[in-house]
Amino acid sequence: MLANPILNLNPDVATVVEPPIAEAKGWVTGRTYPADRPLLDLCQAVPSYPPAEQLCAHLADRVALFETAQYTQIEGIPALRTALAAHMSGFYGAEIAAENALITAGCNQAYCLTILALARADDEVILPLPYYFNHQMWLDSLGIKAVHLPFRADRAGVPDPADAAARITSKTRAIVLVSPNNPTGAVIPPATLAAFRDLAKAHGIALILDETYKDFLPDEAERHALFADPAWGETVIQLYSFSKAFSLTGYRCGSIMAGERFIGQAAKLMDTIAICCARVAQDAALYALEHLWPWASEKTGMMLGRQRALEAEFTSGNLGFELISTGAYFAYIRHPFADERAFDVAKRLAQEAGVLTLPGTVFGPGQDAFLRLAFANLEAERMGELAERLRGFS
Amino acid sequence: MLANPILNLNPDVATVVEPPIAEAKGWVTGRTYPADRPLLDLCQAVPSYPPAEQLCAHLADRVALFETAQYTQIEGIPALRTALAAHMSGFYGAEIAAENALITAGCNQAYCLTILALARADDEVILPLPYYFNHQMWLDSLGIKAVHLPFRADRAGVPDPADAAARITSKTRAIVLVSPNNPTGAVIPPATLAAFRDLAKAHGIALILDETYKDFLPDEAERHALFADPAWGETVIQLYSFSKAFSLTGYRCGSIMAGERFIGQAAKLMDTIAICCARVAQDAALYALEHLWPWASEKTGMMLGRQRALEAEFTSGNLGFELISTGAYFAYIRHPFADERAFDVAKRLAQEAGVLTLPGTVFGPGQDAFLRLAFANLEAERMGELAERLRGFS
Repeated sequence: MLANPILNLNPDVATVVEPPIAEAKGWVTGRTYPADRPLLDLCQAVPSYPPAEQLCAHLADRVALFETAQYTQIEGIPALRTALAAHMSGFYGAEIAAENALITAGCNQAYCLTILALARADDEVILPLPYYFNHQMWLDSLGIKAVHLPFRADRAGVPDPADAAARITSKTRAIVLVSPNNPTGAVIPPATLAAFRDLAKAHGIALILDETYKDFLPDEAERHALFADPAWGETVIQLYSFSKAFSLTGYRCGSIMAGERFIGQAAKLMDTIAICCARVAQDAALYALEHLWPWASEKTGMMLGRQRALEAEFTSGNLGFELISTGAYFAYIRHPFADERAFDVAKRLAQEAGVLTLPGTVFGPGQDAFLRLAFANLEAERMGELAERLRGFS
Repeated sequence: MLANPILNLNPDVATVVEPPIAEAKGWVTGRTYPADRPLLDLCQAVPSYPPAEQLCAHLADRVALFETAQYTQIEGIPALRTALAAHMSGFYGAEIAAENALITAGCNQAYCLTILALARADDEVILPLPYYFNHQMWLDSLGIKAVHLPFRADRAGVPDPADAAARITSKTRAIVLVSPNNPTGAVIPPATLAAFRDLAKAHGIALILDETYKDFLPDEAERHALFADPAWGETVIQLYSFSKAFSLTGYRCGSIMAGERFIGQAAKLMDTIAICCARVAQDAALYALEHLWPWASEKTGMMLGRQRALEAEFTSGNLGFELISTGAYFAYIRHPFADERAFDVAKRLAQEAGVLTLPGTVFGPGQDAFLRLAFANLEAERMGELAERLRGFS
């Protein structure tokens, strides 16, 4: 045998795309922008405000304790699982038990555990276009085939259960939905979610619902009734994040809500991938659930104000760019350059207009006409500045 | 099609064993032990002392900052990567760059990213017996075949490169070594590590070396020269943890040291599984690297004292149990009950003698004669108490 000095790599992972946000940030690295025309960073969904002061004070107390430096139970500390189950029960008018909750190091991890507990290489998972890129990256990494649903701009980005029904095969293991959606902001109505659930249930597959942005729904929005079905645990798997509502992205805390049998499988993977979510992150999440809903509500009201301000700019002004859908953190817009790839438009927009966005193509095939704006990063009173830069861009 | 109300699960994950430590802890849950004869918990490797006070004070400052609540770079904060590379360079007398480091949420995660970046379903990975159970669980979860090397009690638990050479096939993607070992405590000599490296290099496969317990080696121990090879990055992948040396288990911080090409692949998976290691955990690790080696050195000296005290008990006393190997945190012992399964011996030992250990069988097939003691949890002056309980156990 000949010596081979080049390390063999997993071909599935080798073909996974580069992390898009890091790449986009590279477009502006080392560049300087005038003080009166600073970079508008609408590339990553991160709260523009710090966490609550009382939460930081609480964590300052917690880090003094030995307990905070020690492992927790794999599924998370019992008080947090109980508090989260109580919150979801109240939010959805359902009865969800602490045993249905597993705490993860962020919602990406919740998704990764969930997919792996359901599917293996050569299985299929249904993913509507445009997708959240990390969802696709994980399927690619595991050699699981992502079966895409077409982007329904005609339904303001709401995926159609009929499109999914036509694509289910004996290899399908799950349907993945994100609502409010990343990247489009679209909110899937309760009746549509119920139709997806019925479809999944009939096939013995999972309906994975990523609700990272649920707290940014307007108060008056009708809530889904998925958890009201006593047998929900054999079909519905809800993913959640503490990052956005409480501005805790850097702590990495999220969750899975699922049937107890499924939680048992996910816990084996949690033990293997992480042992447990960082204790201090769990302490932060618990404090938030117990004390910070009024604080979060004020912030989400502010976010809604930003969304309304953005919508007003697109409605009133001739921006050249068209607003397709919006909600929670995101707006999905069509750019006016028919002959230019979204990647090139986004890069030029960053470098020439100082507006950092993500090109639609990082969210899947057929998205060359679109850009994603993580508009929540920008104060409402600065939406006019954004509109002006878009209007002047050619 | 008939409705199927039972959710289909990934058969690979369904067959993964239950997390062993949670199961062992279940043996003593709800039981009370006399105050003069408390439970000796030697089941999980957790430092018995809190982190350094000055580190806790530093973290109390850090949690007040917005930055601490925000995402970091996928690969970790640059200052930490730089500090870790400098530490490893100094420790091994080599030149390792910051670009070779990727910060993970603990060493389990470092292993998971590494395996997935190398191997896919139906590939093979070589794992010596007894293995660290989470290593086997991850391979099982991914449908990767673990090819076991026999336990070499005749070599005090040091695996033999010849055993590995005989088992390499075209499907082999990596050899996994843990030194100092979990569960045996065995330390693999530098020459043996070099032989494993040569074997891996000749086949274009990875040598994964988990050095979670490296800081518990005696100062006089000869250090390996794997990083001295200018081409090390095409073969050697080192995994490390900040949990043990600095008593930070609950913060979840570890690392991968590898070639830059490999780090690029692992970073895609890190983004997908975690986005980044929790910022506060990275802050803790950075502070530790910059300020706490004298503190850690005192603690590891104490650990060595515990090891010596344990060895003295086994050497001097007729315990019935035989010490096979020991080092760092662990001792691997042979129990005297030829007709009893290790699982039953461990459970009885926990419930009747108040000594919580793990049965050898959680570390792989053929281990029914053995138990693992995570002796580092017990102060040196209490080793006599442990010995007395073992001596009186029948």
